[in-house]
Amino acid sequence: MRFIVYGVGAVGGVVAAALARSGQEVLGIARGAQLEAIRAHGLRLKTPEIDETHSLDCVGAPAEIAFGPDDAILMCMKTQHAEAALDALVAAGVRDQPVFCLQNGVENERRALRRFANVHGVTVLLPSTFLEPGKVVCHARPRFGIFDVGRYPGGTDAADAAFCAAMNRANFAAYPQPEVMQSKYGKLLMNLGNIVMASLGPGAGDGGLHERLKTEAQAVLTAAGIAVTDVGRDDPRRAGILDVTDVPGEAPLGGSTAQSLQRGTGSVETDFLNGEIVLLGRLHGIPTPANAAMLDLAARMLREDLRPGALTAADLRALIG
Amino acid sequence: MRFIVYGVGAVGGVVAAALARSGQEVLGIARGAQLEAIRAHGLRLKTPEIDETHSLDCVGAPAEIAFGPDDAILMCMKTQHAEAALDALVAAGVRDQPVFCLQNGVENERRALRRFANVHGVTVLLPSTFLEPGKVVCHARPRFGIFDVGRYPGGTDAADAAFCAAMNRANFAAYPQPEVMQSKYGKLLMNLGNIVMASLGPGAGDGGLHERLKTEAQAVLTAAGIAVTDVGRDDPRRAGILDVTDVPGEAPLGGSTAQSLQRGTGSVETDFLNGEIVLLGRLHGIPTPANAAMLDLAARMLREDLRPGALTAADLRALIG
Repeated sequence: MRFIVYGVGAVGGVVAAALARSGQEVLGIARGAQLEAIRAHGLRLKTPEIDETHSLDCVGAPAEIAFGPDDAILMCMKTQHAEAALDALVAAGVRDQPVFCLQNGVENERRALRRFANVHGVTVLLPSTFLEPGKVVCHARPRFGIFDVGRYPGGTDAADAAFCAAMNRANFAAYPQPEVMQSKYGKLLMNLGNIVMASLGPGAGDGGLHERLKTEAQAVLTAAGIAVTDVGRDDPRRAGILDVTDVPGEAPLGGSTAQSLQRGTGSVETDFLNGEIVLLGRLHGIPTPANAAMLDLAARMLREDLRPGALTAADLRALIG
Repeated sequence: MRFIVYGVGAVGGVVAAALARSGQEVLGIARGAQLEAIRAHGLRLKTPEIDETHSLDCVGAPAEIAFGPDDAILMCMKTQHAEAALDALVAAGVRDQPVFCLQNGVENERRALRRFANVHGVTVLLPSTFLEPGKVVCHARPRFGIFDVGRYPGGTDAADAAFCAAMNRANFAAYPQPEVMQSKYGKLLMNLGNIVMASLGPGAGDGGLHERLKTEAQAVLTAAGIAVTDVGRDDPRRAGILDVTDVPGEAPLGGSTAQSLQRGTGSVETDFLNGEIVLLGRLHGIPTPANAAMLDLAARMLREDLRPGALTAADLRALIG
């Protein structure tokens, strides 16, 4: 199985580097400065335990790849960029190959299934940072991360088994999960705090706001009849596998929304995190004022080009009212 | 109520011209050559009965509009362009105003509801053509078209009533419809033939292919528990209201996918028409080989830059196998 890592950012970068260093076949699809840096100098992977640079074959777009039946595509871009990426894969001739969605939220699998028959969800517990071209930082030890993987909308198959075997060789802990979307909803509850972290900056107390967002979400998910598997700090699989810790010389872990704002990418995935709860709330008649306020907050941070830490917990309380 | 017509193409163009000629407040959002032509010469509306040119205020993007509480936004771009449009509306400060989705398919309302609380579905029966900047052609008489309109996911409200009143004044026949999505699924069944018409060219016999696509779709919709209201040729509301006929000096009606290919826009909405059936089939375990073949066909027509009429019914039969 050759892994096509589409989007070599915080998640895709660590996965691609981990596959490369374990001697597995991997090809990245990256853009701009990241593509140039990887081609010029390789991809540097820093963790609490290692600091290595690996060469990584990279192209700029799917059209440059001669896809074969043994390829697996790992979708690692953010949701707001996924539809254009899926279109590019269709145009490049991808058809029956497994498409693994490693993104946050629960919308990507649905978008992929419209185009491809062989779609898999992956819950990604991989505390990582991408702020500077050519370098990704993974904040976990001894494994780089934990994955749940399964076929969408349900079940597991040989592609999931092959994915898990490859990822285990690459120093992840990967588990086939026949109800993978339950686990992705669990991850979604964690990600509801991303915009909070992004607005307050790393390490700031949120005055219980993330808990409030989760409580609102749980009422919505119950009304929608959606089951959730906890993959947060209480997930027993984390013990001895995934200790999240600082990396010498690197900024503390901030969250992916904070990184998008810090890098000035012009978009954040809040519409597919808090926005998923707002959408479900509107469909099922459950009010979601706190999560809706987070959408307004994200729109404002983009509009005013605010950087992580621009707001205080009092500012956020005022937003929700 | 001021109507912001976002996307002044075949549907948006006829709606905008009809609102303007009936003396109602309307502002278009258009792009490129269409924007330039409308600014320079107004918008020409041809139907079997009239040939008029009306001036129409137009801007190039939502950012140029000072939105107020009395605005209603009419989404008239194709689905594949809707997400960027919704983002632009958020950035321009739209928040509580009603957003009416006049697009084909059933995905737009869901995408809009993630961002806006006040979302309405509109089923559009409006046989129209946009092939040349500054001109739209409506092939119906005596009314320009029929609309079903209702709140998403269900119900009707004062905004729907105001929409219907304005559209009735503008020579449409508009009906509040508390289960508007049932009517949009009915329209979707009609639109499953768009890619067939686009590949064979106008007037060519399809050897029963559209019927086969609809039969497949009906099995999928039944499995998914989705109710459908017929809005096709047997809809009794059409009699005496919507006679579809040729317009002197204009090409016969082709369908929106054919128009996209003819104009070389580089995208078609097949993923949200036949693709909706394929997605639901995959979610509910119902095979949809004919509709899936239409997705491959659309991808091929884009890849090879084929124009309407490039294929024969025998070619299409070979695709489905």
